[in-house]
Amino acid sequence: MVGKIIGDKVILEGKEASKNYNKGCFGILNGKLTLHLVEACYLLEKERIEVGKGRKKISLHELMQYAVDNIPEFEIKYLVYRDLRERGYVVRMGNDFLLYERGKRPPAEPAFLVKAVSERATFSIKDVSSWIDEAGEKALLIGIVDEEGDITYYLTKIFSMSGKVNESEYEGEITILHDRSIVFDENLMEELRKGFIGRDFGKYVELSLMETAYLAEKGAKILKNREEMDKKEFLTHVIEIQPDIKGRLKVYKDLRKKGLLPKTGFKFGSHFRVYTHAPHNTHAPYLVHVVRSSYKATWAEISRAIRLAHSVKKEMVFAMVGKKIKYIRLKRITP
Amino acid sequence: MVGKIIGDKVILEGKEASKNYNKGCFGILNGKLTLHLVEACYLLEKERIEVGKGRKKISLHELMQYAVDNIPEFEIKYLVYRDLRERGYVVRMGNDFLLYERGKRPPAEPAFLVKAVSERATFSIKDVSSWIDEAGEKALLIGIVDEEGDITYYLTKIFSMSGKVNESEYEGEITILHDRSIVFDENLMEELRKGFIGRDFGKYVELSLMETAYLAEKGAKILKNREEMDKKEFLTHVIEIQPDIKGRLKVYKDLRKKGLLPKTGFKFGSHFRVYTHAPHNTHAPYLVHVVRSSYKATWAEISRAIRLAHSVKKEMVFAMVGKKIKYIRLKRITP
Repeated sequence: MVGKIIGDKVILEGKEASKNYNKGCFGILNGKLTLHLVEACYLLEKERIEVGKGRKKISLHELMQYAVDNIPEFEIKYLVYRDLRERGYVVRMGNDFLLYERGKRPPAEPAFLVKAVSERATFSIKDVSSWIDEAGEKALLIGIVDEEGDITYYLTKIFSMSGKVNESEYEGEITILHDRSIVFDENLMEELRKGFIGRDFGKYVELSLMETAYLAEKGAKILKNREEMDKKEFLTHVIEIQPDIKGRLKVYKDLRKKGLLPKTGFKFGSHFRVYTHAPHNTHAPYLVHVVRSSYKATWAEISRAIRLAHSVKKEMVFAMVGKKIKYIRLKRITP
Repeated sequence: MVGKIIGDKVILEGKEASKNYNKGCFGILNGKLTLHLVEACYLLEKERIEVGKGRKKISLHELMQYAVDNIPEFEIKYLVYRDLRERGYVVRMGNDFLLYERGKRPPAEPAFLVKAVSERATFSIKDVSSWIDEAGEKALLIGIVDEEGDITYYLTKIFSMSGKVNESEYEGEITILHDRSIVFDENLMEELRKGFIGRDFGKYVELSLMETAYLAEKGAKILKNREEMDKKEFLTHVIEIQPDIKGRLKVYKDLRKKGLLPKTGFKFGSHFRVYTHAPHNTHAPYLVHVVRSSYKATWAEISRAIRLAHSVKKEMVFAMVGKKIKYIRLKRITP
């Protein structure tokens, strides 16, 4: 029997219907087999079915063109669907795709929700966050199709981190210059070296504005021109130089509370590299990039960030700062 | 003798003047020694001079604060200057810094122009390009100071590339779907496989819009719904999907003329990965990112791009597209 195009579906009757459902779990079987155009193209490409429009059999080329004209982002969906099928998985059409573990099929539960996305689409952290919610118990897999049709998969989830670095209170004086501070106070210098905060600057210790802001909340005094600077005045000064300090500081403090020690991640293009233990000869396993919930970027930028993180054996984590902080990890995997 | 602050200089008289000039080439010697505040801070930190303001000797802390108040971006300049001096180089103050090869000093010519830049500054490709011009015969070294005071150096220059991949003319038909094309034409498929263009798609060959646009200029016909598409209409369609295609295509064609073969660099967050030889089991030594001359980015993004390129053993090259194309390479080095 030749499958018939009806709207955005292909309807298959006769024994091909149950055969295609049984072998590979294609379509929805209800006497007839109703195939999504993505499924129908795949089966036609594999020469497992024939498809007709009116009385005329049509070619793969014609069916693909028909699908392009009728399904938004058809090529992107098709490339991801096809790739997963070629890898031997059962994939069901739903909103997006439902992917089963290797060897599994319904009535088992699908293990992944798969989103097929064009590299030309905009990355929006808010969308990614809501996709995670949508996936519920399932894991979220984002398949990005590049312009040449190659696909990169990102396993995406809410991430929890914790470590063993204790917090302390600090007494003593920090001298702010302009866009960084120096500690000339010997007791405080010693405490900071014990706490792995700041960086040696000759005989002294240099602090970033971020570290200065944190220490101010932990009891240290800020001096400007030998006079104590009021905390509010200090924060106004910092915001002028680093407008996004509030979000970053919020994440910095939250990470510290989890026993983690953030240091600048500038060399990796992220806000923080994060240690779980005292950073003497230990590896920082996470890169944390702080973003607002309105954050958007190109997928190429995200791809670069994740690829770089992996190349230095770190996990790439976006800290989405709203009322709460959501840590979202994207990890490149091969299904 | 105690050096005297006069405006934004420190003036040293007596035998300290010639001693400090002779040992390390600090300042401008003209009977007296005129030191830039950057130089004076360094010598004071090293306890090689004393500095007075009025009748009072001042501390490093006070001199640094004075310098912060009088020299724009003093901390950034100081950290780079200090780092290069600590590495044992002679550095002279000019517009920015003039750096001599190890063991060299005036009257030798400086080997590098060094720009000291805060990670918070905006990366502008136009500025970088004009800095290369400004450096002239010297090499350009950009020192980026991160918030914790660590410095990353980028050796930056106009870059020339060439390869051994020949161009051809192409006959035959390409079927455009929406955001990519498929070649069902067997002769053309064979030619494309020989020319390393496109990617296998089952029995067929899939092309990116970029490749399709290139092939259209090289003689191939574009079909849409089995009808030939006019080149202008095709370009309008492509621009709708990929607004920056013109600049990218210009660079693609220029690279092809140089015997190079560009493929998508999406996995590396760049527009192209570029091969010098047929890409069967060969390494693509370059990543090329196409930008307009108005392109701006954060230095963190640039840092990430370069770091990723190096981690996969590639050179990071920005193709600045104006009337001509300028290829600018940034390479991370340790001085």
